[in-house]
Amino acid sequence: MSPDHPVTAFAPATIGNVICGFDVFGLAIESPGDTVTVRHIAGSGLRISSIRGDGGKLPLDPAANAATISISALLQGTRQTVAMEVALEKGLPLSGGMGGSAASAVAAVVAADRLLETKLPQDELLSYAVEGERAAAGGAHLDNVAPALFGGLLLVRPGSSHEVVRLPVPSGMSVALLHPSVEMSTKAGRHAIGTTVPLDAAVAQWGNTAAFVHALHTNDWDLLADALEDRVAEPHRANGIPGFREVREAALSAGAVGCGISGAGPSIVAICRDTEGAAHVGAIMLSAYEGGLRPMASLHLSPVSHSGARVLPPLALSAS
Amino acid sequence: MSPDHPVTAFAPATIGNVICGFDVFGLAIESPGDTVTVRHIAGSGLRISSIRGDGGKLPLDPAANAATISISALLQGTRQTVAMEVALEKGLPLSGGMGGSAASAVAAVVAADRLLETKLPQDELLSYAVEGERAAAGGAHLDNVAPALFGGLLLVRPGSSHEVVRLPVPSGMSVALLHPSVEMSTKAGRHAIGTTVPLDAAVAQWGNTAAFVHALHTNDWDLLADALEDRVAEPHRANGIPGFREVREAALSAGAVGCGISGAGPSIVAICRDTEGAAHVGAIMLSAYEGGLRPMASLHLSPVSHSGARVLPPLALSAS
Repeated sequence: MSPDHPVTAFAPATIGNVICGFDVFGLAIESPGDTVTVRHIAGSGLRISSIRGDGGKLPLDPAANAATISISALLQGTRQTVAMEVALEKGLPLSGGMGGSAASAVAAVVAADRLLETKLPQDELLSYAVEGERAAAGGAHLDNVAPALFGGLLLVRPGSSHEVVRLPVPSGMSVALLHPSVEMSTKAGRHAIGTTVPLDAAVAQWGNTAAFVHALHTNDWDLLADALEDRVAEPHRANGIPGFREVREAALSAGAVGCGISGAGPSIVAICRDTEGAAHVGAIMLSAYEGGLRPMASLHLSPVSHSGARVLPPLALSAS
Repeated sequence: MSPDHPVTAFAPATIGNVICGFDVFGLAIESPGDTVTVRHIAGSGLRISSIRGDGGKLPLDPAANAATISISALLQGTRQTVAMEVALEKGLPLSGGMGGSAASAVAAVVAADRLLETKLPQDELLSYAVEGERAAAGGAHLDNVAPALFGGLLLVRPGSSHEVVRLPVPSGMSVALLHPSVEMSTKAGRHAIGTTVPLDAAVAQWGNTAAFVHALHTNDWDLLADALEDRVAEPHRANGIPGFREVREAALSAGAVGCGISGAGPSIVAICRDTEGAAHVGAIMLSAYEGGLRPMASLHLSPVSHSGARVLPPLALSAS
């Protein structure tokens, strides 16, 4: 029997591409993230009771929201017909390059799985969350959804027999994430890249992804720095991001191991050796950003998180 | 004072690309290889006294041979003007996809370095050998030259601050190498690939190179098998290689971890877990190849070699 009380789950922000691995690397940070609460209701179908933190921009139509699309896929996949009410708390910006739609989708399936007591295997939860991400981001990309669900730093290769591979994370690895408050559509960002890659850039990119993985295994921060270069997306996307070049240069001068676009942007991520480094680099990134006449920005600092989405303990309804 | 007696060095065959890493991976095998003998002579300049094993196809012009071009670069780089005679023994086929020009270039600089007693650092020897390879193969590619010199399985990223990175080799890893006796020019092979890569193939390729390196570090043969796929060169080059598809299918059915084109072809390489596996797979590849009406072929079996080029001990001139 399913519980009558609501279930709330959290899924964290994720950094798609991790600079050098367009569409194949993703990592989870500890916070911020999105929170989804689901509860049984009478009647049939899904309904969204509330969305907070989106500035009123997201529609309440369950057919147009990554969270409810994912739950719908789960219900179809498990052949259940139940009525459910969904409340969404967006801790992540819309179209911010922080994996917001993936976090909503993942938190939704994790919450629904608990509410329904289906105890689905993780890879099945992943496949349902991908449906929500597909609708939001225009393709079945795993580089945000998988780390939002599993945590850590992942290699994703959709369609292969090893779709998700967990990579080692050098001790301390942390990020500074600067989010200029402009929206960049993932779909439009993909369009800008085109459908082909120059051979020399492509060769450099697959040399970099190989070097990146070797550096993770050997704790070689110098090699990591050398590998954290984006020859594929950055040339097309950097011009659209306010202050990108100044912020990147400031981050590298301040000791960041690497700096580039997070996902499709506009967020700018710096990879650092530890939390102190991330705090130092982040402050300098913000300062470089604010040196220009630019939209507001927010800064997030976090270690790479080894845990991904999780059900949150129920709120105490009465204080003692 | 330089020795008066001749110096002979050997450099092994190498497998460029290692199937999934066009231009970035290369590995050395133990044999066959090329052998270069150098000796001081009176007068000035370089001369080629003999070339054996090439079927008379290579010119004796020192300006047109990878071995002498490399030695010439070494002499210029170290500002020496000495006269030297070079004898080349080709154990590797011309334009065979087995790194023949790289082996000649590398054996030449290793022999010259010993003859001249210059004791140059390995990376300097590499840079001179690259000049010979550039002339022969039409570009400064490291994926054959570096493993011919250093041995092992290498990641090469020309122009980066970490040009050559040694990757771990799972214990036992061996290759079966089938060489159909047709010539394929590296320059022409590169031309066939074109100057751009479709984005989806490129993403798959850099996912594969990342997975390949992770699999090497974790001894994960299943992941290795999944990663050993060539989305970039094989589609353009496979049709030109006699029996490629039948041989590849036979190798995989016989238990090869992966099978693809060695370098620019026409050699076909199968990666196997151990020498017994390579012997079994190789026999079946040869049988599949000979099932068709095709040019002669030769088969080589070898573990991945951890040692690369080396000076050979002097021949005993008189038996006791």
